[in-house]
Amino acid sequence: MATLAEKAEAFRALHHGPRPFVLPNAWDVPSARVFEDAGFPAIATSSAGVMVSHGYPDGEQMPRRELMAAVARIAERLSVPLSADVVAGYGASAEAVARTVERVLDAGAVGVNLEDLHPSHERLYRVDAQLRRLEAARRAAAKRGVPLVINARTDAFRHAPGEASERLREAIRRASAYRDAGADCVYPMGLSDADSITVFVEALRCPVNVMIRPGIPPLAELERIGVKRVSFGPAASYAALGLLRRVAREILERGSFELLVDGAITFEELNRLALARPPPPP
Amino acid sequence: MATLAEKAEAFRALHHGPRPFVLPNAWDVPSARVFEDAGFPAIATSSAGVMVSHGYPDGEQMPRRELMAAVARIAERLSVPLSADVVAGYGASAEAVARTVERVLDAGAVGVNLEDLHPSHERLYRVDAQLRRLEAARRAAAKRGVPLVINARTDAFRHAPGEASERLREAIRRASAYRDAGADCVYPMGLSDADSITVFVEALRCPVNVMIRPGIPPLAELERIGVKRVSFGPAASYAALGLLRRVAREILERGSFELLVDGAITFEELNRLALARPPPPP
Repeated sequence: MATLAEKAEAFRALHHGPRPFVLPNAWDVPSARVFEDAGFPAIATSSAGVMVSHGYPDGEQMPRRELMAAVARIAERLSVPLSADVVAGYGASAEAVARTVERVLDAGAVGVNLEDLHPSHERLYRVDAQLRRLEAARRAAAKRGVPLVINARTDAFRHAPGEASERLREAIRRASAYRDAGADCVYPMGLSDADSITVFVEALRCPVNVMIRPGIPPLAELERIGVKRVSFGPAASYAALGLLRRVAREILERGSFELLVDGAITFEELNRLALARPPPPP
Repeated sequence: MATLAEKAEAFRALHHGPRPFVLPNAWDVPSARVFEDAGFPAIATSSAGVMVSHGYPDGEQMPRRELMAAVARIAERLSVPLSADVVAGYGASAEAVARTVERVLDAGAVGVNLEDLHPSHERLYRVDAQLRRLEAARRAAAKRGVPLVINARTDAFRHAPGEASERLREAIRRASAYRDAGADCVYPMGLSDADSITVFVEALRCPVNVMIRPGIPPLAELERIGVKRVSFGPAASYAALGLLRRVAREILERGSFELLVDGAITFEELNRLALARPPPPP
């Protein structure tokens, strides 16, 4: 079995291939395992996906201990690397972020998403504060001997003042600082059109994470632009719950069950998704 | 807010309407809440759905405390009644079943599924033992003043010896005894064709639960047969994970994201599903 350090290196290497890799975000064990079985080389948790699944809105209302227990359940049953979305790190201080990273490693994840938006004030952290927080995350993992993969998310495009072009410039300014402070990948939340993504990627010249959302360019175009990591965000939860809503409507309005049973997996397949993949034959 | 006793009575009344009611089984908070919002009058948990979501195969390997925490998270955020699937009650003895029912009420659920198959031996309990277990469930809830809705499941059709006709007879014999011991509804696991369901319903003459599975007759025919309760079982998990498998294939084989974003709910809608429905305007 790979060590955490080996898993972190394998995960990091995915950010430096010739093509983008797609990182599906899961909300629980079987949603993670079904993606692993499909062939994705790494899995992430979605903060909104995991938190809403447990009855908490996205943010940091779900206690960190409970979130980490959910991350651990998933990590324990995956062979591929797992990255954990920890929102803004559960605390404003660098020390709080360091403690959260220790818990992430305890849970068995080898990457984090760390954002620069204060989750309850909806205000961006000052850049110098966010740099201290990112450096604390790196140091805390290094102390454990794990080259944690840090995906530094900036919410400047959505939350900085000014017009779209000013907010894009602020997102670039912040992401550049995070990159220089050692982030492995930067993640401009809210960018979805090809032009803005192109400007951002050309300015950064380091691995950039783009989230799948309606209107996002297809993978081939993201590859041409130079995007390295394409994550689901909470889209798997959106899709699954959208399906359940259609299932409900079909049953309540038409009395039939087609959407519920067509294309479904079986009981045996579901049960297998509770457990780690069996090791490959020797 | 309705008391547990009021919720139990409202749930029981659904079993005595002129038409069958559909009971969707959820695996977590948003899957339950999306069904509530769609208009289902009650929700249930799926044992396989909840357990696999937490990384345990169906059965009783998930610790009872952890299962009850999951049930409580869902119950706390629902206005409609919730029924909990507790497999075979977490213990062979009547006392164990009584303790499990107390935990179910503590969690805020007002119904249980209780089956007659020993979950690790895959052997049917003797009928007299199962009757003592059902009576203990009833008494434990009555002591708390809650008229718990007991759905007595028999696995005889799948696990009794003999030909299909003999196994159907054994399922009828067992379900009749469970009904006479005070079960509110009986649940013949494995029956899915109209003829067998008809024989069973006509023999029982009490509320019968049928599970949705491929090949099950549509709701109108189940109504003609006299079925009173039509549950999802783990079908919502099967459907959601089937969708994620198709999503994965589309992305990995074609590089496009249509199945992930088409028909999905939004971030705001997901976040709202973490919380209880707002009370209706006065």
